[in-house]
Amino acid sequence: MQSTMSMRTARQAVARPAPARAGVLPSKARRSVAPRASAAAAPAKVESVEQIMRCVNAIRFIAIDAVNKAKSGHPGLPMGCAPMTYVLWNETMKYNPKDPKWFNRDRFVLSAGHGSMLQYAMLHLCGFDSVSMDDIKSFRQWDSTTPGHPENFLTPGVEVTTGPLGQGICNAVGLAVAEAHLAQRFNKPDAKIVDHYTYCIMGDGCNMEGISTEAASLAGHWGLGKLIALYDDNGISIDGHTDISFTEDVSARYAALGWHVQHVKDGNTDFESLRKAIANAKAVTDKPSLIKVTTLIGYGSPNKADTHDVHGAPLGAEETAATRANLKWEYPEFEVPKDVYDVMRSSVTRGAAAQAEWNASLAAYKAKYPKEAEEFTQLVSGKLPAGWEKALPTYTPEDKGLATRQYSQIMLNALAPVLPGLMGGSADLAPSNLTLMKMFGDFQKGTYNERNVRFGVREHGMGAIVNGMVLHGSGIIPYCATFFIFTDYMRSAMRMSALSEVGVLYVMTHDSIGLGEDGPTHQPIEHLASFRAMPNMLMIRPAAGNETAGAYKVAIANRKRPTTIALSRQGMPNLPNLSSEGVEKGAYVIKDSSGTPDVIFMGTGSELELAYAAAEVLEKEGKKVRVVSFPCWELYDEQSAAYKESVLPKAVTRRVAVEAGCSQGWHKYIGTEGAFIGIDTFGASAPAPVLYEKFGITLDGVVKAAKAMF
Amino acid sequence: MQSTMSMRTARQAVARPAPARAGVLPSKARRSVAPRASAAAAPAKVESVEQIMRCVNAIRFIAIDAVNKAKSGHPGLPMGCAPMTYVLWNETMKYNPKDPKWFNRDRFVLSAGHGSMLQYAMLHLCGFDSVSMDDIKSFRQWDSTTPGHPENFLTPGVEVTTGPLGQGICNAVGLAVAEAHLAQRFNKPDAKIVDHYTYCIMGDGCNMEGISTEAASLAGHWGLGKLIALYDDNGISIDGHTDISFTEDVSARYAALGWHVQHVKDGNTDFESLRKAIANAKAVTDKPSLIKVTTLIGYGSPNKADTHDVHGAPLGAEETAATRANLKWEYPEFEVPKDVYDVMRSSVTRGAAAQAEWNASLAAYKAKYPKEAEEFTQLVSGKLPAGWEKALPTYTPEDKGLATRQYSQIMLNALAPVLPGLMGGSADLAPSNLTLMKMFGDFQKGTYNERNVRFGVREHGMGAIVNGMVLHGSGIIPYCATFFIFTDYMRSAMRMSALSEVGVLYVMTHDSIGLGEDGPTHQPIEHLASFRAMPNMLMIRPAAGNETAGAYKVAIANRKRPTTIALSRQGMPNLPNLSSEGVEKGAYVIKDSSGTPDVIFMGTGSELELAYAAAEVLEKEGKKVRVVSFPCWELYDEQSAAYKESVLPKAVTRRVAVEAGCSQGWHKYIGTEGAFIGIDTFGASAPAPVLYEKFGITLDGVVKAAKAMF
Repeated sequence: MQSTMSMRTARQAVARPAPARAGVLPSKARRSVAPRASAAAAPAKVESVEQIMRCVNAIRFIAIDAVNKAKSGHPGLPMGCAPMTYVLWNETMKYNPKDPKWFNRDRFVLSAGHGSMLQYAMLHLCGFDSVSMDDIKSFRQWDSTTPGHPENFLTPGVEVTTGPLGQGICNAVGLAVAEAHLAQRFNKPDAKIVDHYTYCIMGDGCNMEGISTEAASLAGHWGLGKLIALYDDNGISIDGHTDISFTEDVSARYAALGWHVQHVKDGNTDFESLRKAIANAKAVTDKPSLIKVTTLIGYGSPNKADTHDVHGAPLGAEETAATRANLKWEYPEFEVPKDVYDVMRSSVTRGAAAQAEWNASLAAYKAKYPKEAEEFTQLVSGKLPAGWEKALPTYTPEDKGLATRQYSQIMLNALAPVLPGLMGGSADLAPSNLTLMKMFGDFQKGTYNERNVRFGVREHGMGAIVNGMVLHGSGIIPYCATFFIFTDYMRSAMRMSALSEVGVLYVMTHDSIGLGEDGPTHQPIEHLASFRAMPNMLMIRPAAGNETAGAYKVAIANRKRPTTIALSRQGMPNLPNLSSEGVEKGAYVIKDSSGTPDVIFMGTGSELELAYAAAEVLEKEGKKVRVVSFPCWELYDEQSAAYKESVLPKAVTRRVAVEAGCSQGWHKYIGTEGAFIGIDTFGASAPAPVLYEKFGITLDGVVKAAKAMF
Repeated sequence: MQSTMSMRTARQAVARPAPARAGVLPSKARRSVAPRASAAAAPAKVESVEQIMRCVNAIRFIAIDAVNKAKSGHPGLPMGCAPMTYVLWNETMKYNPKDPKWFNRDRFVLSAGHGSMLQYAMLHLCGFDSVSMDDIKSFRQWDSTTPGHPENFLTPGVEVTTGPLGQGICNAVGLAVAEAHLAQRFNKPDAKIVDHYTYCIMGDGCNMEGISTEAASLAGHWGLGKLIALYDDNGISIDGHTDISFTEDVSARYAALGWHVQHVKDGNTDFESLRKAIANAKAVTDKPSLIKVTTLIGYGSPNKADTHDVHGAPLGAEETAATRANLKWEYPEFEVPKDVYDVMRSSVTRGAAAQAEWNASLAAYKAKYPKEAEEFTQLVSGKLPAGWEKALPTYTPEDKGLATRQYSQIMLNALAPVLPGLMGGSADLAPSNLTLMKMFGDFQKGTYNERNVRFGVREHGMGAIVNGMVLHGSGIIPYCATFFIFTDYMRSAMRMSALSEVGVLYVMTHDSIGLGEDGPTHQPIEHLASFRAMPNMLMIRPAAGNETAGAYKVAIANRKRPTTIALSRQGMPNLPNLSSEGVEKGAYVIKDSSGTPDVIFMGTGSELELAYAAAEVLEKEGKKVRVVSFPCWELYDEQSAAYKESVLPKAVTRRVAVEAGCSQGWHKYIGTEGAFIGIDTFGASAPAPVLYEKFGITLDGVVKAAKAMF
């Protein structure tokens, strides 16, 4: 798009704010709006174009006014996307504003999260209690339900937290995965109790991010026919016109990824094409759909439309006045005329009817299929089945020590039969991560009811997809896996798990230089530290069998925060006193002396045995020693002061920690007098025992460090 | 690809290891191999197919034997890719084994880095001194030049470190960017002193990773005609056949991204098609080229070809013997027949001639264009121009304080005229990151000589591209920028900078909750900690003008390690005694008392002023105070014990640090008795001053923490 051309388009568009085709639409078009609408719940009424335009302008001015008042925000997207959003929320989507968590609602994701005011305007206008006009006026203020970017944990009606570009469309893929899975698992030929669409609005930025291609490729592979993405093709990003860096053929790319692709050339005024495109998308049931919708960013603003000035800054008083004049919008700031509310809030009645209809279906299902209904109800309740944790095995020192990735496989396969929501897989490392649930097949086109997911080499997309699977709110407990080092590829998605308060289980194997020959590109060093630093993320590095069981117990129990479990490639012994309960406390004593110890050894995972062996050496030399297993800093930090003093008494300053990772953060536990044996450089390519020796992570090293303190 | 079909193909292929079309090629085809070959340097001789097959089998068995001996590694890719690699290295590429750093060589990147033995086999056979047969026998052992994945800093002839999938193809884009830039900047109609291709072999994994789409989209946008990627389409990844997760049309995707795309259907034996495809790719000068080459992974192995068993595990003695028999390879382990060496090492003569020819061209260029030649020679020497750092401005407390992102803009624009290698840009945040060099235009198709690069919203691809720009080895000093939070999208590329020892400058703005209204998705919390933990990464958070100058000084001077500079959105004062020299020491005293201080305040960046103000409060109350500015932990840790004692005397245990980030790691400096004022939770959406107040990062908070110690 040439900028001169774009500007001309802009001028034309603002010169004719009223749509070309006015009047009531023919009934045929009206029917096409919702071809799968249920028989009972009334389809949305198609309003006159004039009336629709009033609603659309109301959306625009709520956004404009809120951004002006906040003195920051993004008015351009809401102004450009208001028409497609109107068609989605008022004519297409099934939802109940008075019960935003109704299970069978259509899901909506604003992947271009900076356009949050679009979503808040819709929530307000459509009658959600979460966003009042006062909330709109508190846009981007402390403690409001209308933060700068949509946050699922703050605002009922917001399905997922978006903002970092590309995450939302991947979350949408995850929502569609959840729907497809549950539908195939529970629906019967005569009873569709799981049956909804997932809609997503994404922008140029989402499409530039590689993560969106990862998830889109999977969505195409899986043939997720009930996923419909609308691509707001407005040709503007922060640096200016997208032609300075983004000239690929997005539609052709999606077609290559196996999507059904359409183009609505005038997304500003051509409602009929929008309706038809959505109807077509619904009619294609074996492919996800992309509808490229060409819009004018900042539509209606005489001087700023189609420029990056309208992307991320308030219009300002003068331009707002000019826009009001241009769009013939006579209402003052934050005022919405009654006819607009009347139209928009028809969604309340419609939603209640739809939900009532579904409730009836569910009741019929319960009567006819009581066993399946019980499982379904239990699952979507989000409550864990009673006694699930009893499935986890325990070990004694007599049990031959395995690698913790092997114990992880045992735990997964022990939990799979008792946790109906457990579902997940690896980014093409299943044989190394050991993440297959042996009693299930693959989630694939035609076998959506299965629970092993094959993500391919797409770590970032994987993380964002599993976030969506949790946020579907139907009791799915997803896990996903790769080598620990490749968390570097998916860090933003993992942070979104933590921020969004979703209990994803990250199974991360090959957790140190113990990986050996693959070398420094594959050896995590700073990764334990980097996740320990991340808010609301539980980072657990278990030792042997009982602690791996404990790690799983913690991860499954924590449905509001994600857990990353770092697992070894190499074997380790089942030391005495290792326990699942110990993991829940973060750190605990596994070997002790009588009286105050002379020295405390601490260790995690595969190096705990070095701490233990070093303690035995010093014990033989007459020292009083204690060994603390320290699988999880976060959980330890949450313990009482008394418990902490009982594990690490202040009086004992001789402390040695050993871990095949970087030192950062350990000083909090070893103190200024303590020693840390680990690795603060990159690793190298060699067999693991050689690396441990060369980098000094040895029994001798731990013993010497301790002796140096006496 | 159906697995049954694939297996059939496998059987056919191993049944006829000899190629269908034998004999010498017609002279026309021979000429087509290198249409741009120089007149003087002799083109590579095209050997008989029989002879080529002997060379190809030698490559395969070196790889097989080395992996067997190492008891780990990836034989499958070398066995499948040996034919295309032969055509590249023996008939196509221009390089001098005896001078691996010769400036005008063609660059080769093995993006599928796990196939490292392919590259080592080529380096050995083609006469590079870096890889002897003994080195081959030391594959994956401590201190060898043949680590598990190729490492640029260990093995001359390896251009870039690869292993994490998708990075290599993006590095290749960066290499091609560097070539295009230098070519347009220095070449004359009668003198092409910069003129080489960049070749890359990538696999299915590289193509599944989103990062590759990001960089490929840019390569297409930029029209990098001298970038030629060969896609090893072998249909196998670790989880099995790629059809379980990867069924998109890769060729169509690249076409949509603006690439010229071809398909060689039999990459195992059809050398003529390989040659033609490469010739065609070279003939297309305005688009990068993808050549999809369908191969058989583990070609020649009767029982393991076309299975994932051959991907990442040794063939083993029995299957190796069967493969030797199948391919009629009579030579024992690690033995290469003389005729093979003779053919392969013709590259030494050819390379010397090509380099001699280029030397002559350069001499002529120097004579005719002395000024340009001087700049060129200076630039590619990699040495910084004398006195460059004098261009950096200094500030006094009288200078009105700006945001450090604004100071960063000043530094960039001060350095641009004196650093001819400075080149870079932002991931679509130039107006926020303030990263435009005002005297230059955009690097775009037709204006490759310009130095502002527009990366679009593609952080990960950006990072990997700039790594390639450094590794071109021509003195380019790239910087790249985004919001600090979005380092989460590009962490693997940043780690690759650190591991590969390349001095990229990461300009990361909006470095805390000071970002304000955009909310927690945009507010870094754990990011300073996470980069401080990363080996070989300099993490600098400067305060005001002089420290931002110092940060740039450090970043530019460190050509062997990357620097991340965290910069504020909000303004801060130029406190007394802030200095560039102080940054170089990591931490330094900016305010002091006479005698041993009662308390030490520490701070970084935008919070240093809180430390300073708190010190003034306590000073007024009669306490002896010291204030330490602490912009860089890594540099401080490298100082002498005496210097460290002079800044943070052990005797002073009352220490308070303040930083709008997480506490992790600070205990090393504040000790067990110290206090840290910061934020260990996610942020929120509100104006920045409100957030600082609500999260307790205030003057009052710092003062109280200090007073509590008395």
